Amino acid sequence: MKPTETLLNGILDEVRPLIGQGKVANYIPALAEVPANKLGIAVCYNDGEIIQAGDSQESFSIQSISKVLSLTLAMALYEPDELWSRVGKEPSGQAFNSMIQLELENGIPRNPFINPGAIVISDMLYSRLCAPQYRMLELVRELSCNPQIVYDKIVANSEMQHSDRNASIAYLMRSFGNFNNEVMPVLNNYFSYCALKMSCVDLARTFSYLANKGQPLGAKTPIISQTQSKHINALLATCGLYDGVGEFAYRVGMPGKSGVGGGIVAIVPGEMTIAVWSPELDQSGNSLVGTAALEKLSARIGRSIF
Amino acid sequence: MKPTETLLNGILDEVRPLIGQGKVANYIPALAEVPANKLGIAVCYNDGEIIQAGDSQESFSIQSISKVLSLTLAMALYEPDELWSRVGKEPSGQAFNSMIQLELENGIPRNPFINPGAIVISDMLYSRLCAPQYRMLELVRELSCNPQIVYDKIVANSEMQHSDRNASIAYLMRSFGNFNNEVMPVLNNYFSYCALKMSCVDLARTFSYLANKGQPLGAKTPIISQTQSKHINALLATCGLYDGVGEFAYRVGMPGKSGVGGGIVAIVPGEMTIAVWSPELDQSGNSLVGTAALEKLSARIGRSIF
Amino acid sequence: MKPTETLLNGILDEVRPLIGQGKVANYIPALAEVPANKLGIAVCYNDGEIIQAGDSQESFSIQSISKVLSLTLAMALYEPDELWSRVGKEPSGQAFNSMIQLELENGIPRNPFINPGAIVISDMLYSRLCAPQYRMLELVRELSCNPQIVYDKIVANSEMQHSDRNASIAYLMRSFGNFNNEVMPVLNNYFSYCALKMSCVDLARTFSYLANKGQPLGAKTPIISQTQSKHINALLATCGLYDGVGEFAYRVGMPGKSGVGGGIVAIVPGEMTIAVWSPELDQSGNSLVGTAALEKLSARIGRSIF
Amino acid sequence: MKPTETLLNGILDEVRPLIGQGKVANYIPALAEVPANKLGIAVCYNDGEIIQAGDSQESFSIQSISKVLSLTLAMALYEPDELWSRVGKEPSGQAFNSMIQLELENGIPRNPFINPGAIVISDMLYSRLCAPQYRMLELVRELSCNPQIVYDKIVANSEMQHSDRNASIAYLMRSFGNFNNEVMPVLNNYFSYCALKMSCVDLARTFSYLANKGQPLGAKTPIISQTQSKHINALLATCGLYDGVGEFAYRVGMPGKSGVGGGIVAIVPGEMTIAVWSPELDQSGNSLVGTAALEKLSARIGRSIF
Repeated sequence: MKPTETLLNGILDEVRPLIGQGKVANYIPALAEVPANKLGIAVCYNDGEIIQAGDSQESFSIQSISKVLSLTLAMALYEPDELWSRVGKEPSGQAFNSMIQLELENGIPRNPFINPGAIVISDMLYSRLCAPQYRMLELVRELSCNPQIVYDKIVANSEMQHSDRNASIAYLMRSFGNFNNEVMPVLNNYFSYCALKMSCVDLARTFSYLANKGQPLGAKTPIISQTQSKHINALLATCGLYDGVGEFAYRVGMPGKSGVGGGIVAIVPGEMTIAVWSPELDQSGNSLVGTAALEKLSARIGRSIF
Repeated sequence: MKPTETLLNGILDEVRPLIGQGKVANYIPALAEVPANKLGIAVCYNDGEIIQAGDSQESFSIQSISKVLSLTLAMALYEPDELWSRVGKEPSGQAFNSMIQLELENGIPRNPFINPGAIVISDMLYSRLCAPQYRMLELVRELSCNPQIVYDKIVANSEMQHSDRNASIAYLMRSFGNFNNEVMPVLNNYFSYCALKMSCVDLARTFSYLANKGQPLGAKTPIISQTQSKHINALLATCGLYDGVGEFAYRVGMPGKSGVGGGIVAIVPGEMTIAVWSPELDQSGNSLVGTAALEKLSARIGRSIF
Repeated sequence: MKPTETLLNGILDEVRPLIGQGKVANYIPALAEVPANKLGIAVCYNDGEIIQAGDSQESFSIQSISKVLSLTLAMALYEPDELWSRVGKEPSGQAFNSMIQLELENGIPRNPFINPGAIVISDMLYSRLCAPQYRMLELVRELSCNPQIVYDKIVANSEMQHSDRNASIAYLMRSFGNFNNEVMPVLNNYFSYCALKMSCVDLARTFSYLANKGQPLGAKTPIISQTQSKHINALLATCGLYDGVGEFAYRVGMPGKSGVGGGIVAIVPGEMTIAVWSPELDQSGNSLVGTAALEKLSARIGRSIF
Repeated sequence: MKPTETLLNGILDEVRPLIGQGKVANYIPALAEVPANKLGIAVCYNDGEIIQAGDSQESFSIQSISKVLSLTLAMALYEPDELWSRVGKEPSGQAFNSMIQLELENGIPRNPFINPGAIVISDMLYSRLCAPQYRMLELVRELSCNPQIVYDKIVANSEMQHSDRNASIAYLMRSFGNFNNEVMPVLNNYFSYCALKMSCVDLARTFSYLANKGQPLGAKTPIISQTQSKHINALLATCGLYDGVGEFAYRVGMPGKSGVGGGIVAIVPGEMTIAVWSPELDQSGNSLVGTAALEKLSARIGRSIF
């Protein structure tokens, strides 16, 4: 069953009462100020059709969802052996910014979707791209068909001012030989990627290449191969939601990636891409109401991959 | 594309040269004695058709694959709230028998597919079934359509004689109030389940309910609901292969469960169940050649769920 | 300056107001019922003179203080190489019953004064003594010059009924090959040692061999050599107070050993042995008021070893 | 018994054959180049008399021994409550530069003698001294009665070039609010302190205030109180030799502090200060031959504090 706008609106109405049970991210002021009652959803079919409801066109900070874009760029720039010698493919079983595992495992992060992993990927992009921030912006504008997308400088600067934990992570990896550039410029890029401002519609369009064998909407050539696309989806299914990845697979049954801005992108391979936004987070740092909305949508349209 | 026997035989020929790169489990003599060059595969379609190749009809010790059957029984006996208050749904990020996480997380195992989780499930079965070993045997004989299936008493006794680590796990959970019966009888059951002797054909038939919405082959009623079936597949995809779950998703792209006897069961929801057997294990404790065979099969028939 | 009864009484009066700030051990009923306001102290000079104040003649459960006696017996029965291959000499930096370190360090406990270490020592005594409980009782009666000392059976049985955590520890060491006997009989002995009932006067007399080069009060021959006596004191100074050993050295400056029954024994090498009792424990599991009393006494008589 | 030069020479001859069993620190070139066969010892009595043998007047990099001087300065600048709220007093039970415990304990290092603790102390000195490096140099010149003592700039620069791990530690503490200044200038100071070049004679003189109630050699006033001096000795006894503190207490029986340059300082309270130097380290990072020499000296003169 294909979802309709009526269905999407119905689902938003059902989950809206959950607002208040989670907690908006407050480690930087720019995120803490986002109204908790924002709620939007957009579905992008592989043929380009968009169905949407709620605050689906309002931009928000995509945060860790950008880690999927960084990985996509890195997969195009590095051979698999190079890439996977510097970051693993396994769920971490620990909080997204924990350093314990990183020390025990000699500076090789568990996967590209926890902070240490995404910081290593940023280091790799920094080594091979002459203007990584520009290239990233170009990519998302192209994929989303929205040339207005920008970095939120206030968010990026605010992250940079609260960057001690991430600096500690980067220096630890550097001490193990798994970080090749100066720490601060790489972190600056990393925070910029996280500070991308996009709407649910932008996100659903942007990530449709993962539902369509690596083929972006309206593009003539794939940006990654079908196999690479399956690889990213596999990593999302096992590592995309921090310490809540099992629960998300259990309830929603789709590969997905969340950000502390409250956004979640979910993929139904071969069919559609879904983006949802609600700022309050659950204990694992994933959008509480967003997860509930995806759970209901998955049940209604019968599109769990399991 | 549907696999044929020719295809299966071709795949076994391709992966056979990998024999020698892994290590047969040797913590008990009964497992260490299994010839390393055994190799079999069986595919069971949802309509009951079986395609097979190699040593597909030879029985082996299914070991941890039995954890899926225990969970299935427990899901039929307990309300979800009861069940999931005693065991989690997240990948552990640690070795299958580690106690560190178990202590840090107050005796609640991360998921039902690591040893502590399966031991808790065994404790729960012990509490609600009057003859748990008999019930389990009845279930697998029914699901596999093979009334000859038995427990390997030599393996079970041998495990019981090397049970110190698992006894330690059980007593630790008991000290946290997450274990309700005497330790030794429950471990005795747990080891019996692990000591089930089944062939690839038996396994492919047995687990076809997970590919078919909870409906076993030839049965009139499902043993679990479609939703429960999706739940088990989701848990397999995120927790079914110990510390190699990400790699397995990346390479194979199917929910699956491995055992140290060298067996792996993999599910293509809605279509088929696959069982493969090769005794040598990789560093994560999963069948090395078996994983390679599944990877090739998945690529050839295009059935990665991602 | 030699302490007098007046001084001891004065110190008890000064620290008595602290009663209420700690917490009586309550993991077994027999300990939880001890009145929190008990407070006693005894000093035994190397010449045998005893000075005492408060509830110094009332018996209480010595608990972990018995670990020093077990070690003393083991040092007489085993060569140093044998002994120190099975247990270490370093502070653990973790709670007294943590299993995390024990797993990481392959079943070799950090020192003989944390639970796993004392359980290994009990296993060693069990292997070489035909009646370990009888031998221990004989030893303490001799050392304390008090033939009335007994095991508190109610406490020992109660411990045995709450032994899951310690059973888990023993089985874990057994899985690493560092435990040679059946678990339950060894634990039974271990809990009996802990359940010894002794008064401050008994304790001060008993441990005077550590202040007097291995020579017990009134004995003709030392029970251990002077070097062994120094070794035990060194281990007490670095490992005798769990996770509060640094704080105790800082405040009191004497080698010592505490028990969850609220007793502490402290040694002034060459001069005297001190025993204090107050049931309420601080966060590290050491007697809160007892530590304060020892701190004041140490300052008053200038007998910090530092 | 007072040691004589004959005794010291004899001890050096006895331990010299052990050279070759340890490993010279090689994480920076400047340390790796020190000849492994250097061996010196000096004893400074509280009355100022010096007995020495071997390479006792040759300067070497004191490294972590400087942590005692930093703590001494901090104790003079901060109230105990301020100081001990930012760093603990307990042995860590982990390697000297581990970050695992630091993360679990919210950025509060276990004690001032592991790297994180000394870096916090450096941060505190940086906050209250206008020229910390100058003040430190002034202090050691005064205490050692040697105005020639300097920082080894090559060592300090080399450390700074290999500072990633320590930078990671500092940023982690900063993320927990336990670090108040810019990271790099503080590390620069920290490495300078470590790069102090001193001989055994310098060290024995310098630290004699710890054997003499806070009173430096030839000074009219103590630099710290007698109580503070006892406090430092207590911390040395429980935390001064990294993960070998229990072994050192067992074998030597004196409060002490080691450095990876191969120096060890040991205190006999009320009597003398001993400094020994031999570059090869044991597995805990303490001078292997130096520890053996101290063990023999302690046994010969009967000055274990236990």
